[in-house]
Amino acid sequence: MAEHTPDSGRYAARGVSATKGEVHAAVDKLDQGLFPGAFCKIVPDVLTGDPAKCNLIHADGSGTKSLIAYLHFRETGDASIFRGIAQDSIVMNIDDLLCVGATGPILINSTVNRNARAFPGHALAELINGTEDFLTTLRDHGVNIVSGGGETADVGDCTGTVTVDSCAVAVMDRDKVITGEQIVPGLAIIGISSAGQANYESFVNSGIGSNGLTSARHEMLSSYYREKYPETYDKATPADLVYCGPYQLDDKLPEGNGMTVGEAILSPTRTYAPIVTKLLADHRASVRGLVHCSGGGQGKCLRFGKNVHFIKNQLLPIPPVFKAIQQASKTPWKEMYQVFNMGHRLEVYCPPEDADKLLDTIRAFGVEADVVGRTEKSQHDNGANHLTLFHGEDMLTYAL
Amino acid sequence: MAEHTPDSGRYAARGVSATKGEVHAAVDKLDQGLFPGAFCKIVPDVLTGDPAKCNLIHADGSGTKSLIAYLHFRETGDASIFRGIAQDSIVMNIDDLLCVGATGPILINSTVNRNARAFPGHALAELINGTEDFLTTLRDHGVNIVSGGGETADVGDCTGTVTVDSCAVAVMDRDKVITGEQIVPGLAIIGISSAGQANYESFVNSGIGSNGLTSARHEMLSSYYREKYPETYDKATPADLVYCGPYQLDDKLPEGNGMTVGEAILSPTRTYAPIVTKLLADHRASVRGLVHCSGGGQGKCLRFGKNVHFIKNQLLPIPPVFKAIQQASKTPWKEMYQVFNMGHRLEVYCPPEDADKLLDTIRAFGVEADVVGRTEKSQHDNGANHLTLFHGEDMLTYAL
Repeated sequence: MAEHTPDSGRYAARGVSATKGEVHAAVDKLDQGLFPGAFCKIVPDVLTGDPAKCNLIHADGSGTKSLIAYLHFRETGDASIFRGIAQDSIVMNIDDLLCVGATGPILINSTVNRNARAFPGHALAELINGTEDFLTTLRDHGVNIVSGGGETADVGDCTGTVTVDSCAVAVMDRDKVITGEQIVPGLAIIGISSAGQANYESFVNSGIGSNGLTSARHEMLSSYYREKYPETYDKATPADLVYCGPYQLDDKLPEGNGMTVGEAILSPTRTYAPIVTKLLADHRASVRGLVHCSGGGQGKCLRFGKNVHFIKNQLLPIPPVFKAIQQASKTPWKEMYQVFNMGHRLEVYCPPEDADKLLDTIRAFGVEADVVGRTEKSQHDNGANHLTLFHGEDMLTYAL
Repeated sequence: MAEHTPDSGRYAARGVSATKGEVHAAVDKLDQGLFPGAFCKIVPDVLTGDPAKCNLIHADGSGTKSLIAYLHFRETGDASIFRGIAQDSIVMNIDDLLCVGATGPILINSTVNRNARAFPGHALAELINGTEDFLTTLRDHGVNIVSGGGETADVGDCTGTVTVDSCAVAVMDRDKVITGEQIVPGLAIIGISSAGQANYESFVNSGIGSNGLTSARHEMLSSYYREKYPETYDKATPADLVYCGPYQLDDKLPEGNGMTVGEAILSPTRTYAPIVTKLLADHRASVRGLVHCSGGGQGKCLRFGKNVHFIKNQLLPIPPVFKAIQQASKTPWKEMYQVFNMGHRLEVYCPPEDADKLLDTIRAFGVEADVVGRTEKSQHDNGANHLTLFHGEDMLTYAL
């Protein structure tokens, strides 16, 4: 993918492999489960042995977003910021599960790896209570999810701060799985905004999610943090790539409607669970595919469906947080779309004639959504998926 | 617990809270599930809604043992050492599940948080393949356990090395749960050795397990590693507590029958799953309780049963690895028993008259086991559990 892949640049210099090429290489040799084209790995029903059912066990976490929360915590003493990290860790799991149609019941568990000196008991209590409170909110909005416990490990020699991960489990009917095989040429792509405030949310989202935060943190935040918090970065990273941005956490975000930089990059990840639950309840047959634009950003879709040319030519407005990250980092726009969601973190694939009714359902939650593009037949002789994305007048192209 | 608690000394100075007092304080306010006295949290059957069943979702990992593997890997280039870490992470979960009687089916998942520069793709491949191979070995020995996937996160600013965690899930019949309530006065305590070689194992265990490894690593290994591998310890730890021991990894362990120090402290954690599966199949009524002596060591039992005075007066021989750690660190013996298993990592509570038949079953697996003590009525007016443990002629006492 030429010179603009995340692996080739500043991203790799920070010890992060954004395209995860080597990880996929190791994993691709393993059994791919019942539906190799699905968004999550799905295995036979090990847990209860029902041949009509299947199991999902999915792990993900807040990644390095916990470090931004840590900076805020150290600067202000406010440990409640970790409640948002609890939400991030949960949503990174359940919004992946949504993409195969697993809307619940879900059993979830969280693991905290911490340096007990840097991340004390009262911060841990906020994480734990934040987890419980967010799950209660989800249940209040019709998402059947229950915590089955958690683990805290004191591993101060592994981390100077804290990492938060979760694991979510579901048992579902095989015939209800969204397999990915229905992502074919001829569909409309609906993007559901990652920003703003849904009627099931109590705050305005910046749109940031939980991906690309290593980059966003260093490119946005100033050397003030480099000197003060050496525990929050890898000493092997070249110094000029560490906290090399223009901002402090409480600076105002440009065009951010009063949101600070800290609020923007720490904004807890929106879940689409209430929306997808309703979409599948009312319009299951119209929903041909769901893609969570997490790691890989707008290029995530490339891994799903066959013989598809994805065309995204009417993307939602780019939220201010991503514009500010691009401006601070001078990251090529092509790479920005591979790292960040850039405006929508969930996309729905449906027949073009069904788009309006799905949009009505989605917009009823107070979230911006629109048809952002379409699928056509792959232009490659081997049928490989590819993506053409319009950034203003610029046409950007991507392949796996 | 006076001056010899792990929290008071060198352990706490390394950013580790061995008794996890503050963690328990935060967690104890949460719903304790269906069987609050059981070894693991057990919740109603969220996953399939069967009122006769219940769910377990359990997370744990290899902790800082991954750092010893990392040192070996860096010194020798041998990445296959991480296969043992995969085993450690799995066993720390399934051997906890055994203690409530959940012997399978088990669905498991692993999460690797890594610094992509320090922990490269071929090391990751060993972890992933090691996981699959160990699960195959378990299945070959009658343990129904299946992997449902895994997650690798590149979080180089959170860790300079790697952490490995797993999450294990089971659905079981409520009436088969070992609730902990049958740990009462009047029972025999059988200890099953953590060392040696079972007939289902391909190597000799040192007995070490996956607890206390922060302490063991620093107290055993020399300053050679301090200078060469700064990414493997917390910079906030006083320098005289970092790699302050006498050994290098390939030095011979004293009294270790040829085992090196590295082999001894990296010895993959034994699972007791084949043994417990057989015990419960043949003698379920005799098994009144099971305690995995993981974090908390020989004091772990204090959290289970009611009105109990635990007396451990005939412990198994102390494996050489623990003697060497004590000698190198000068850790008081009382504290050694709170951090390490010291000889048996699983104990079975049974009526004294049933001990011999259980021992016959256990010993058929080629593992040393014996009655190591008994339970009596608590000597405290409030009925609080307490423990009297004999270290040679010395009587050591513990309470929660």
